[in-house]
Amino acid sequence: MKILKGNAVVGQSGGPTAAINATLSGVIRGALAAKEEGIINTLYGMRNGIEGFLEERMIDLTERFRDGAELDILEQTPAAALGSCRKKMKSADADPDTYKRLLEIFKKYDIRYFFYIGGNDSMDTVAKLSEYARSNDYELRVVGVPKTIDNDLAATDHTPGFGSAAKYVATTLKEILRDVSVYTMKAVTIVEIMGRDAGWLTASAALPKLSGGLAPDLIYLPERTFDVEELIASIEKTFEDHPAVLVAVSEGIRMADGTYVGASGTKTDAFGHVQLSGAGKALEYIVKERLGCKVRSIELNLPQRAAGHLLSGCDIEESVKVGMGAVKVAAEGRTGVMMTIVRGDGDEYTSSVGCAEISRIANAVRGVPDEYINDESNGITEAGLRYLAPLIEGEVNVVYEHGLPKHIVL
Amino acid sequence: MKILKGNAVVGQSGGPTAAINATLSGVIRGALAAKEEGIINTLYGMRNGIEGFLEERMIDLTERFRDGAELDILEQTPAAALGSCRKKMKSADADPDTYKRLLEIFKKYDIRYFFYIGGNDSMDTVAKLSEYARSNDYELRVVGVPKTIDNDLAATDHTPGFGSAAKYVATTLKEILRDVSVYTMKAVTIVEIMGRDAGWLTASAALPKLSGGLAPDLIYLPERTFDVEELIASIEKTFEDHPAVLVAVSEGIRMADGTYVGASGTKTDAFGHVQLSGAGKALEYIVKERLGCKVRSIELNLPQRAAGHLLSGCDIEESVKVGMGAVKVAAEGRTGVMMTIVRGDGDEYTSSVGCAEISRIANAVRGVPDEYINDESNGITEAGLRYLAPLIEGEVNVVYEHGLPKHIVL
Repeated sequence: MKILKGNAVVGQSGGPTAAINATLSGVIRGALAAKEEGIINTLYGMRNGIEGFLEERMIDLTERFRDGAELDILEQTPAAALGSCRKKMKSADADPDTYKRLLEIFKKYDIRYFFYIGGNDSMDTVAKLSEYARSNDYELRVVGVPKTIDNDLAATDHTPGFGSAAKYVATTLKEILRDVSVYTMKAVTIVEIMGRDAGWLTASAALPKLSGGLAPDLIYLPERTFDVEELIASIEKTFEDHPAVLVAVSEGIRMADGTYVGASGTKTDAFGHVQLSGAGKALEYIVKERLGCKVRSIELNLPQRAAGHLLSGCDIEESVKVGMGAVKVAAEGRTGVMMTIVRGDGDEYTSSVGCAEISRIANAVRGVPDEYINDESNGITEAGLRYLAPLIEGEVNVVYEHGLPKHIVL
Repeated sequence: MKILKGNAVVGQSGGPTAAINATLSGVIRGALAAKEEGIINTLYGMRNGIEGFLEERMIDLTERFRDGAELDILEQTPAAALGSCRKKMKSADADPDTYKRLLEIFKKYDIRYFFYIGGNDSMDTVAKLSEYARSNDYELRVVGVPKTIDNDLAATDHTPGFGSAAKYVATTLKEILRDVSVYTMKAVTIVEIMGRDAGWLTASAALPKLSGGLAPDLIYLPERTFDVEELIASIEKTFEDHPAVLVAVSEGIRMADGTYVGASGTKTDAFGHVQLSGAGKALEYIVKERLGCKVRSIELNLPQRAAGHLLSGCDIEESVKVGMGAVKVAAEGRTGVMMTIVRGDGDEYTSSVGCAEISRIANAVRGVPDEYINDESNGITEAGLRYLAPLIEGEVNVVYEHGLPKHIVL
């Protein structure tokens, strides 16, 4: 193995998660260890991802965290501490100036390691950068580190950030169920959960079933066609058993003609604007009209991806590990790869960190498989629950200050 | 002091809070102690409040919790474990049959102590029942135990349940702030918080200011007239300082002509229904039209009153204490009173449990006082923060099972 000495840079990109800084912490922990070994000298953090890097807006992370203190606080701080961006890189042929500029900055700061924490678009950036450096004979090791609450990246058993979001969703659903079940009158509560193309997070609404007491009655994922008549019939059937019906829907559910349920309720408000309502709101009005009972819709919104006060211990531990692993595999010579989590065989949950060629992953969406969705397309199977359950296990003892979770500001 | 021996009954009424079962636990703890002393024999729990009591639907709580086990789980279980109701009692003159029926049930079960945990309507029930028993020479001690996330009851420094809701709101706002601040482009986020007539919970959105980092830029309470021109001007001014502007609004904000902001955006949807949008949604469209930037609205909705996973240590401790105190003052002979929390003088926060004549309290709404709201009517003063801060202090070590908070089902 050839040792490549030089500096490193890490960036965060795309939508926030509650675990994206745990992965950043892992990269920092890995870099501090690599510094000891004389491999990496300085780890820079790019502000606002590749956008800030192009403007040379960086912070020296090896200096900021030189004694490892406060990394535990970083690991409980939600949303990209370095800032994020939504830049989708064009190809080097289409935008040669940007790539030339990147190469200049790599040379100027002697950057030999490039770590990028993000979702699908970020993995695409990793693939392009890795290829560009290779074809320009600049030795650069580019490693992608996945994060997304959507859990929709290929080649990995699950993605860092998903477990914490799933724990938040399952906990909140369990609590909402208690709230709506205190009365004796018929009522329908519809909860809209994030996930445009993949229903993993909505599926996690089924998890309260494993911890006793109440669980959602009906769960609809974007992987199956949504049928409003089936919903109405299923609600009426559930009313025969108990008065408070809870329905969990993914924001991305679509009807047979392919239109989003959320978009079907477009309307004009008092000011003449076209208003796009979410799937939950649209269904609230439909169910109210059809059944005449009390109906409420709840959109879980941003808190489901930013709830740093309610982290999955499993998720945070793995998120740190994939960050550390990224430094390790890069030091060993890998480039153009994405870190993955590999689930062990056997009944007891175990996992290990791996990596996969980025070409296998970029731009592929991994949906919830058929065997995790029931035949009626309105619930999660035992197999699905078995997949999800270990990912929300364990709690993080969050440090509080003045009654609120402590966050780090970089 | 005359010792009144007999049985007791406790009920929960009105909207749920995350602390209403901590108060129930306090009443149970108090009753178990009174049983030792030979005062109370059995403590019944009425299902669905006075509604279930009229149907004699009850559970023997002294038996269910006879060794005190699981009371800690009850204290972390959100929303009325006994079920709730929304029954507003008429006067004995207007509805003599109901009162006669109540007296029958009291006699049948030898009930001498009546504890009712609830908000304004429940305190009204306490006042009426106490008076009716007295005028019918039935010795009954009726004590109200307040709960409301709205914190709007008179005669008490604050209400059980408020601190936990405030901690949830402040934590969630702190996390949303991190989420929306990762990008460099201009964006406005509007968060709608519960509180129709009193802005206490919305005011608690200001608390992140005390724990470093980011805090909401603008906060609007129903205690002041809302002016959309002032909002637009304030957002534009804030943009001069930073790109991500966060606005917290109470669901109950009203314009100069008295109409709710939330109702002003009434519109007809594709199905011809009149749609009532909340204050946050209404402002989202107005700000988008006026400023043209990205605008998002978030309604915190039910989780703010049901988040048993994120409890204020101060709130839960006090909620248990007022429950225990209710049994104590009743045993000492008080009736027709509501339990109160009295804040101690001095810089360090202390509190004690008291009680007040119900006639002082019923149907009075206590709003946020002028000195807690800034002159611009768009923020909270230092005095307001000093009042709020201790109420969210302390954390409860919630017990988890299969990755989710453990709840009790009665």
